[in-house]
Amino acid sequence: MSGNTIGRLFCVTSFGESHGPAIGCVVDGCPPGLALSTEDIQRELDRRKPGTSRYVTQRKEADVVEILSGVFEGKTTGTPIALLIRNTDQRSYDYDKIKQVFRPNHADYAYIQKYGIRDHRGGGRSSARETAVRVAAGAIAKKYLRERLGIEIRGCLEQMGDIVIERKDWAAVNTNPFFCPDPARLPELEALIDRLRAEGDSIGARLYVEARNVPPGLGEPVYDRLDADIAYALMSINAVKGVEIGDGMRVAQMRGTEHRDEMTPQGFLSNHSGGIAGGISTGQTVYARLAVKPTSSITTPGRSIDATGGAVEVRTTGRHDPCVGLRATPIAEAMLALVLMDHWLRHRAQNADVVPDTPRLPGEIA
Amino acid sequence: MSGNTIGRLFCVTSFGESHGPAIGCVVDGCPPGLALSTEDIQRELDRRKPGTSRYVTQRKEADVVEILSGVFEGKTTGTPIALLIRNTDQRSYDYDKIKQVFRPNHADYAYIQKYGIRDHRGGGRSSARETAVRVAAGAIAKKYLRERLGIEIRGCLEQMGDIVIERKDWAAVNTNPFFCPDPARLPELEALIDRLRAEGDSIGARLYVEARNVPPGLGEPVYDRLDADIAYALMSINAVKGVEIGDGMRVAQMRGTEHRDEMTPQGFLSNHSGGIAGGISTGQTVYARLAVKPTSSITTPGRSIDATGGAVEVRTTGRHDPCVGLRATPIAEAMLALVLMDHWLRHRAQNADVVPDTPRLPGEIA
Amino acid sequence: MSGNTIGRLFCVTSFGESHGPAIGCVVDGCPPGLALSTEDIQRELDRRKPGTSRYVTQRKEADVVEILSGVFEGKTTGTPIALLIRNTDQRSYDYDKIKQVFRPNHADYAYIQKYGIRDHRGGGRSSARETAVRVAAGAIAKKYLRERLGIEIRGCLEQMGDIVIERKDWAAVNTNPFFCPDPARLPELEALIDRLRAEGDSIGARLYVEARNVPPGLGEPVYDRLDADIAYALMSINAVKGVEIGDGMRVAQMRGTEHRDEMTPQGFLSNHSGGIAGGISTGQTVYARLAVKPTSSITTPGRSIDATGGAVEVRTTGRHDPCVGLRATPIAEAMLALVLMDHWLRHRAQNADVVPDTPRLPGEIA
Amino acid sequence: MSGNTIGRLFCVTSFGESHGPAIGCVVDGCPPGLALSTEDIQRELDRRKPGTSRYVTQRKEADVVEILSGVFEGKTTGTPIALLIRNTDQRSYDYDKIKQVFRPNHADYAYIQKYGIRDHRGGGRSSARETAVRVAAGAIAKKYLRERLGIEIRGCLEQMGDIVIERKDWAAVNTNPFFCPDPARLPELEALIDRLRAEGDSIGARLYVEARNVPPGLGEPVYDRLDADIAYALMSINAVKGVEIGDGMRVAQMRGTEHRDEMTPQGFLSNHSGGIAGGISTGQTVYARLAVKPTSSITTPGRSIDATGGAVEVRTTGRHDPCVGLRATPIAEAMLALVLMDHWLRHRAQNADVVPDTPRLPGEIA
Repeated sequence: MSGNTIGRLFCVTSFGESHGPAIGCVVDGCPPGLALSTEDIQRELDRRKPGTSRYVTQRKEADVVEILSGVFEGKTTGTPIALLIRNTDQRSYDYDKIKQVFRPNHADYAYIQKYGIRDHRGGGRSSARETAVRVAAGAIAKKYLRERLGIEIRGCLEQMGDIVIERKDWAAVNTNPFFCPDPARLPELEALIDRLRAEGDSIGARLYVEARNVPPGLGEPVYDRLDADIAYALMSINAVKGVEIGDGMRVAQMRGTEHRDEMTPQGFLSNHSGGIAGGISTGQTVYARLAVKPTSSITTPGRSIDATGGAVEVRTTGRHDPCVGLRATPIAEAMLALVLMDHWLRHRAQNADVVPDTPRLPGEIA
Repeated sequence: MSGNTIGRLFCVTSFGESHGPAIGCVVDGCPPGLALSTEDIQRELDRRKPGTSRYVTQRKEADVVEILSGVFEGKTTGTPIALLIRNTDQRSYDYDKIKQVFRPNHADYAYIQKYGIRDHRGGGRSSARETAVRVAAGAIAKKYLRERLGIEIRGCLEQMGDIVIERKDWAAVNTNPFFCPDPARLPELEALIDRLRAEGDSIGARLYVEARNVPPGLGEPVYDRLDADIAYALMSINAVKGVEIGDGMRVAQMRGTEHRDEMTPQGFLSNHSGGIAGGISTGQTVYARLAVKPTSSITTPGRSIDATGGAVEVRTTGRHDPCVGLRATPIAEAMLALVLMDHWLRHRAQNADVVPDTPRLPGEIA
Repeated sequence: MSGNTIGRLFCVTSFGESHGPAIGCVVDGCPPGLALSTEDIQRELDRRKPGTSRYVTQRKEADVVEILSGVFEGKTTGTPIALLIRNTDQRSYDYDKIKQVFRPNHADYAYIQKYGIRDHRGGGRSSARETAVRVAAGAIAKKYLRERLGIEIRGCLEQMGDIVIERKDWAAVNTNPFFCPDPARLPELEALIDRLRAEGDSIGARLYVEARNVPPGLGEPVYDRLDADIAYALMSINAVKGVEIGDGMRVAQMRGTEHRDEMTPQGFLSNHSGGIAGGISTGQTVYARLAVKPTSSITTPGRSIDATGGAVEVRTTGRHDPCVGLRATPIAEAMLALVLMDHWLRHRAQNADVVPDTPRLPGEIA
Repeated sequence: MSGNTIGRLFCVTSFGESHGPAIGCVVDGCPPGLALSTEDIQRELDRRKPGTSRYVTQRKEADVVEILSGVFEGKTTGTPIALLIRNTDQRSYDYDKIKQVFRPNHADYAYIQKYGIRDHRGGGRSSARETAVRVAAGAIAKKYLRERLGIEIRGCLEQMGDIVIERKDWAAVNTNPFFCPDPARLPELEALIDRLRAEGDSIGARLYVEARNVPPGLGEPVYDRLDADIAYALMSINAVKGVEIGDGMRVAQMRGTEHRDEMTPQGFLSNHSGGIAGGISTGQTVYARLAVKPTSSITTPGRSIDATGGAVEVRTTGRHDPCVGLRATPIAEAMLALVLMDHWLRHRAQNADVVPDTPRLPGEIA
């Protein structure tokens, strides 16, 4: 228990360093009988993969996933599903110069204080490379949720720097490297990334993620609320510094008459709460936002210290995203899927035979 | 495992309904030898207690805590500490009229869909009354952290509606019912609450909470990051809809040159990250913000449904806070304390004998 | 997490010391809608209660249980069920003389080495008094298993010293203080207890416990096997030193042709395995045995050390059972119920919708 | 959470089927700074490996372990250690004939009832092959315990059928395929195995395992007692049906004056309790016994059913051990190591700074 497992019933235990032999995970608790192939997982992995456009890190990782267990004749068996992704582009020589140096705002210094030792190559365990594992595991959850419960999970970019984007066209999201839902804004985004690269700087981003058709009843009333677990899952993504459910931070300014989601027999009249009341899903669309900080690995030199505590100047070269938020959309979707999957199983454990007297409302009224 | 336990090593298992015989918890994992009395816990409980001013709910709960176990001759023994708070002001007749009605934006409807049954009196388990338990358990964590590690935890109100408050005077925070750090703004806050009450409406709030002198090394690199666990803990508080660590949602607009916290041998030059890098504390002040939605229990009528799914109009009477955020400061402090305590024990389990070569930096430079 | 919780989905978190204000527990994860009253729990508690005959400890504890939460209008709500049992007969003066002394084969010395502090009164947390909590929590599990799944759990004495007892008459078990299934042997048992008391000595015992009508499929294939969890649960009872599933230790001498349980379409031809294969229930009767060591608290003086490490002679007076195994039958039943309940929920979480092609065999052929 | 993880702080999550691509595990929670190489693990794996003598299964598995993560420049880093063992000798055609048949006393039937699907090849997940993973993970725990705490773990055969063996010569144990501590008895054991093979039968066994130099204080007072967790760990090994701590089942016949372990300032005068009192280690040698049932895979035909529930006769061919207990000694050692490692970390989490006033006794007096 050093925190490398997420989930209580649908448990993903992750392993691997950026420049070690491999990364991967064990998914324990998947219900049996789900059709599952490497393609199902690869498809999601490819969405996150580096090197797919000039706007993201040029590290070339094949990110080929192998299913080591838990699937037999194309179906899950209920036993642990181990996923393996070999690291192939481990140019660790790139990192020799940072062996004795702590990069500002990276985990380097914190790791040394915690463990007294660290694999400095590519950030080791703290590398965003680990997020491939999340996407792989999330692909299984996503498939189950879609096929068995009809839950659809999707996400997109909503903001990068001062560029705020409207969710105009969901169909466009997967056709550009920014996961941008408004194709008209792509030239601005491209120009910003190019300018940042030239300036040796980076930028933050805000993402939106949602799950439609979530049945009511998922989540626990206290502590392990659905929203609390979503907050945990999204905040656990590298570089995320803020998480909002429903109206999010804006509720501080809102009135009760404005925020409360009224109900009618025909459905909810609004969805300020993000589909969650008292920590439990209401049957409305569950949605959340996350803010991703600007990449700390930039070419503009910065002040830092070395392993002996002495002052140094650090200039991070190597292949880095000017906006780590760019590739975070599939990761956020995966994390949301993992949380919903876990709560589905938890709900089923306790309440499999509950049949409420009250009819289930349709989701929000369009 | 229905989500009523928080913590892996410092575990708090909560129980109780708003209008049942009692609420309470079992705190398991507290190190032995800590001096602990009911007064230590009562002091924190009294900060959260309803009925202390006319600005908060007039429910009169004595909130007297009894220590049932785990303390012997004034010291913790290492065995579970059970805390009991009897409910004394259970006017459940107030709630008879909502027995067959689901109040908008409350947990009522979600509970029925989940469990098929609910204790409707005062919201039952979904009542904010449960937060008294958090404060009680947090008091133990706070005391340990302060006495053994020198960690100081405190919080305050930063915003209510459009009133944004600066952290001018920490000493003032505990002298007013708003936990407001700027006494000059109190008349505005009081006027707002009075106006809301007259209008039958409510308002949201934003709170700030921090922990100073946190040693570096707390938190796990993946999933159970310190920031992820803080997000979980704060989002698990009733009515919270957004959580920010460090610069929070604002990072979406920031540049890497602006956000990264540079280091010198004399200390960190800034603290945009909220004292956490790669999920692990850096030794800087850990701080976070949370947004609390406006109370849904308001006297302005709202559309809803009843237990048969039929349309009703609901007007919540009873004794409710026009701003639940008002009393949330001690709760947020407690949750932060619980998370830090848990991670201190987790860190110690794995790394009790680690002595890093690199000297420990002082916190941020003033 | 100091080990005071049993179960992953049906979680019982126990608290309390022998001579503190109270003992009790929180049962989290109970499905909603189960009819539950204090009488349901009290009935089981009364079976374990001390002072019911002259053959067991004369400590007079009312052992009155109070349900503090989780039950509304006579039914469980799905929220935590807290149970409280006040300690009433706390004659702690009896124990002053052992404050500075470690009784041989008690937890006294181990506690001091672990915690540096202990509540010495009546053994504090290590007292068998904690087992009342197990019985109380187990009563809930037993009721659910019986009412919802038709599972019947029962146990009895099989051996005390050299007296080996056959399971001749289940109806007799609850009519004598020994839980002896052969009334003809009662005079022997009574004589042995009387003789031991006169001699200042004590004796061990072996118990049998079974669950009939367990559905096939409970248990996990690796680590959390049903048999492993039963072994854990039974060995966690104070003074238990051995646990057997099915044929138990005797399998070391058995042949495969003798031990394997053959199957026919009409049912299993034998049940050497105790109803568990590969860690998973087969649908046969699940049964186990446990050996309880002789009470260490005896009046015959023994050599020991005091708190400074010096040699002392200890003669335990006070009210002690000459055979702690005598009252362990309801406890063993409770532990078996807790394990089965937990695995039922775990099974349901993962496999609620599995419908095997293979017909389910009836249990073993009579 | 389908039970494939053992440990709370030193967590081993296992995966893999007998005839899938690979087996392996993730070890999470290992303290950093431990020197660790594949050789350290391979050495233990080789002790368990099939095909090493004609007395055990002739399946030829190279059982070559690869460390995928968590080790950097020869030392553990505190991040998850993933271990991978590729399956190389997967003759699954051997198993086609049992695809539609449930072998008596195997997990086959229970799996179908639980999951509705199973990987029948070689028993899939229920194969004893999974125990290689335990040995690999246990090797890490063993090394840590030995190097950091001086704890020595070892085991041996004590009984096979009617052949009861004395622990005469620990040095002999690793020099014969039976882990037999009395070389004079080897001819008898060999003759028995040969006879069983000829007869198409199998035999059970009893093993002994111990840990010397265990510090006092490991284990929790209630539920997660050291003995309860050992019972769980040993009973979780395939085919184990009984577990004894200290005097084990024999305590049913013992008197208190005989069983209690008296103490003197020079040490304990006996060790009937197996080094554990009140669930907590006393500083004496911790020891346990386990009984392993006879292999169910025998060539003597047996009655069973097929996947449609019809009657069949099953005769298991293939490469099976006539005594699975033979190879279980390294597995039992590994499980004991895992439990002690976990409890060491748990103890350290809560009690790292405890310094008892009472001096620590030496272990038992020779």
